[in-house]
Amino acid sequence: MNIYETIERPTLLLDEETARHNIQNMAAKARAAKARFRPHFKTHQSREIGRWFREEGVQSITVSSAAMAEWFAEDGWDDILIAFPVNVREAPRIEALAGKIHLGLVLESPEAARLLGEKTSAAVDIWLKIDTGTGRTGISWDDTHSALQAATAARAAAHLRLRGLLTHAGHTYRASDRSDVERISVESISRLKFTRQMLAGAGFHNLELSIGDTPGSWILDDFHGADEIRPGNFVFFDAKHALSGTCAWENVAVALACPVVALHPERGEAVLYGGGIHLSMDTVSWHDQRVYALAALPDPDGRRWGPPLPDTAVVRLSQEHGILKAPRQVLDQLHPGSLLCLFPAHSCMTVQCMGSYRTLSGSTLKIMPRPGE
Amino acid sequence: MNIYETIERPTLLLDEETARHNIQNMAAKARAAKARFRPHFKTHQSREIGRWFREEGVQSITVSSAAMAEWFAEDGWDDILIAFPVNVREAPRIEALAGKIHLGLVLESPEAARLLGEKTSAAVDIWLKIDTGTGRTGISWDDTHSALQAATAARAAAHLRLRGLLTHAGHTYRASDRSDVERISVESISRLKFTRQMLAGAGFHNLELSIGDTPGSWILDDFHGADEIRPGNFVFFDAKHALSGTCAWENVAVALACPVVALHPERGEAVLYGGGIHLSMDTVSWHDQRVYALAALPDPDGRRWGPPLPDTAVVRLSQEHGILKAPRQVLDQLHPGSLLCLFPAHSCMTVQCMGSYRTLSGSTLKIMPRPGE
Repeated sequence: MNIYETIERPTLLLDEETARHNIQNMAAKARAAKARFRPHFKTHQSREIGRWFREEGVQSITVSSAAMAEWFAEDGWDDILIAFPVNVREAPRIEALAGKIHLGLVLESPEAARLLGEKTSAAVDIWLKIDTGTGRTGISWDDTHSALQAATAARAAAHLRLRGLLTHAGHTYRASDRSDVERISVESISRLKFTRQMLAGAGFHNLELSIGDTPGSWILDDFHGADEIRPGNFVFFDAKHALSGTCAWENVAVALACPVVALHPERGEAVLYGGGIHLSMDTVSWHDQRVYALAALPDPDGRRWGPPLPDTAVVRLSQEHGILKAPRQVLDQLHPGSLLCLFPAHSCMTVQCMGSYRTLSGSTLKIMPRPGE
Repeated sequence: MNIYETIERPTLLLDEETARHNIQNMAAKARAAKARFRPHFKTHQSREIGRWFREEGVQSITVSSAAMAEWFAEDGWDDILIAFPVNVREAPRIEALAGKIHLGLVLESPEAARLLGEKTSAAVDIWLKIDTGTGRTGISWDDTHSALQAATAARAAAHLRLRGLLTHAGHTYRASDRSDVERISVESISRLKFTRQMLAGAGFHNLELSIGDTPGSWILDDFHGADEIRPGNFVFFDAKHALSGTCAWENVAVALACPVVALHPERGEAVLYGGGIHLSMDTVSWHDQRVYALAALPDPDGRRWGPPLPDTAVVRLSQEHGILKAPRQVLDQLHPGSLLCLFPAHSCMTVQCMGSYRTLSGSTLKIMPRPGE
């Protein structure tokens, strides 16, 4: 079967072989470094893809919401960390989950620790979120006072078991190149160790260290003493990682196949059926502008897709339209009904928008429901 | 019931009264101007909300995909225009739809007309898409040659009934103020009339004119001879329209209720549970920066929400995190578990992300499935 002959409308293609290769690579690296591999499942959100990880020996996973923890717990995962500052409004859900599986939660303030302690009673692991330089969430690694306060507040409730310190070095996404990713990652781990040492001095012993971003986990050779890694995006990668040099284009495992619906060669554009509700509105920097996706031609035999077309990108998006900017020699190959394969800026978001994958062999894999479903 | 007491996680609130008021206002305006009101249903995507339009006498609707046409056809709508350049890969779906309902399609090239003519046989209305200045899709209003070619190609297939000219003056979204919206809208309609006159001279008579953007439709007092209007977003509006002055904040009918999960007063920030998978990554210009949403406090009695908080906006988004920038006096009112009501940059996209609404009286309204579902 040539998958492209079956495509009528925007379809998220998944190259299973590449995704499995990415999983194997990361699992092998974690084994070699003797770190626990606790992959983040927010990227793929699919029970079936989750089983590909299980085949590589994965037993512990990371998710980004209580709903996602429930989704995977129902498929047999029983060691789940919700790597998001705990939402005390979901205490009843958390309590129910903690009664069924080994649950990890993330805290970053004494207030949240106190509220969680009051509103739940089932045992959970607590990870303190440490900000090692990203500036999004967490206690700053050098804010000794706050770390101590949060740890103390967690200890006050017997069912909250302080297990370790967790960071997401998201600033590797702003790194200039691979060696910069490495520098940031190593620095981030030493900052975590600083916080651990300080807490040990105050009587909090044997805390584990959990790190997590895809660039650092993919590029580092070892994890400098981190006990677990939680990368997620590496299973598919996307234009952001390929353009920054974190991965090769050959590692990119998803592409959104989109029909061409109109051509405007006079302004160097084609109109694609594929907009914000398919790709998401997330962008990546490319030749000093923000773009939504790069584009490739489908493989004529339906085996995969070609390399990114030169000087070609999706430069504007509406709800269902994508405007492709491309040179004449690309536009000349297109007509209404042609297909292009788009490499999304950010694959996690495109997966969320689409709700399912089609593999190159024609299987459909569903993901979990939307937030309001 | 106070709706806010029931909210555990990001929830898209819908103020039914305001949405119905917006619908009534637009319907009354169309009646007064003797224009057909063919609202765009891509904003709400809900069968239940569709019925609110029916109660105002609406019989013809606009959608943005064949899948959306099917979704509403199954709920009894039988006059549907797919206002998107026809996707010839969906010819079998289009053919099936055209056998059941009165279907309108949009063309902008002789190639697409020829392909559609070959691949279908059921009667459909054809609207030529005219670009009156937006520069996204359509035949430029002054490109006499291309308009004539497309009209001629459509006429070559007997089942394609050339019904009219259609534009979307999307450049009203870039207008500086209400009078600029009015100027652009009037100019856009005269450009459509120019194209019609030219086609009449070539033997294409009695073509209708269809216009559609929310700013123009909401602000104009009459439609200067347009036969139908297709606005969509006005049912809810959003931060974009309120900030540009198209509507009042009182007209905004949706808000995303989000729990606070962490506070960082030292950098003037709060972390919200509410990210790109809830709001979408779409942005609006606010004080010379791009932001994802403005924020208000919930009404203490659960009746609605307050006005936008001064100097407060969601300035960064990840998959599930929203970073709120706010002054000290706002942050001082928040703690982990507080709720904020976010006005999305672009409500259509937030609806699509969330998948359902909760009305202030506690009903849940579903929308159509995701593109891959």
